[in-house]
Amino acid sequence: MDKTLKMSLLFDFYGPLLTKRQQDIFEMYFHDDLSLGEISEQLDISRQAVYDMLKRSTQTLEDFEAKLGLVARHQQRQTTLEEITAQLSTLSEDLKIGGRQDLAQRVEELTAGVQELFSDS
Amino acid sequence: MDKTLKMSLLFDFYGPLLTKRQQDIFEMYFHDDLSLGEISEQLDISRQAVYDMLKRSTQTLEDFEAKLGLVARHQQRQTTLEEITAQLSTLSEDLKIGGRQDLAQRVEELTAGVQELFSDS
Repeated sequence: MDKTLKMSLLFDFYGPLLTKRQQDIFEMYFHDDLSLGEISEQLDISRQAVYDMLKRSTQTLEDFEAKLGLVARHQQRQTTLEEITAQLSTLSEDLKIGGRQDLAQRVEELTAGVQELFSDS
Repeated sequence: MDKTLKMSLLFDFYGPLLTKRQQDIFEMYFHDDLSLGEISEQLDISRQAVYDMLKRSTQTLEDFEAKLGLVARHQQRQTTLEEITAQLSTLSEDLKIGGRQDLAQRVEELTAGVQELFSDS
């Protein structure tokens, strides 16, 4: 996986476990795409301090993932969810072909419900 | 919620973040239902040490929940999942009544898939 995407996912799950300062710098670097130099200038701290803070933050996030595995589980689920969604979609189509628009409609509502159930996982 | 159930849920989600020693004592107390005295005897440490360790462990688990809210989200999802499962069940019944055993069968398989998707969250 792309490093920035990986970090972004780790941050989604474990970001609240970082200090406010760590969160800010993490977001400036990985989300706002600022360079170490730009962050250093903006916060008036050394480039080395920014680098150290980022290194510690990513290590912390990876340590939590090693213990809880929320990102890995999220990705497994995402795959299963896509399979289920595809099956629900086929079912809905088959119901329409069978002239059961009413039931097809209910399947589509259920699909939305299932997706919502997992949207924040 | 019952205190033991709450602790058990917190431990399911955040247990790996406790030390091995904390995990052991936590399980002896909340899972195996041993008393402070029994744990103290078994581990050959003071009753006070057991108490302190348990107190620190529960505090740690609650701190993680305050930041990540995995248990709260799990419970919200559980409710939504029950609604969706009930709707899928009704749909399956309606399909059977409509003579579509084949589609009802597919709905039941999907229900199992949705439940599995959720089972370890």
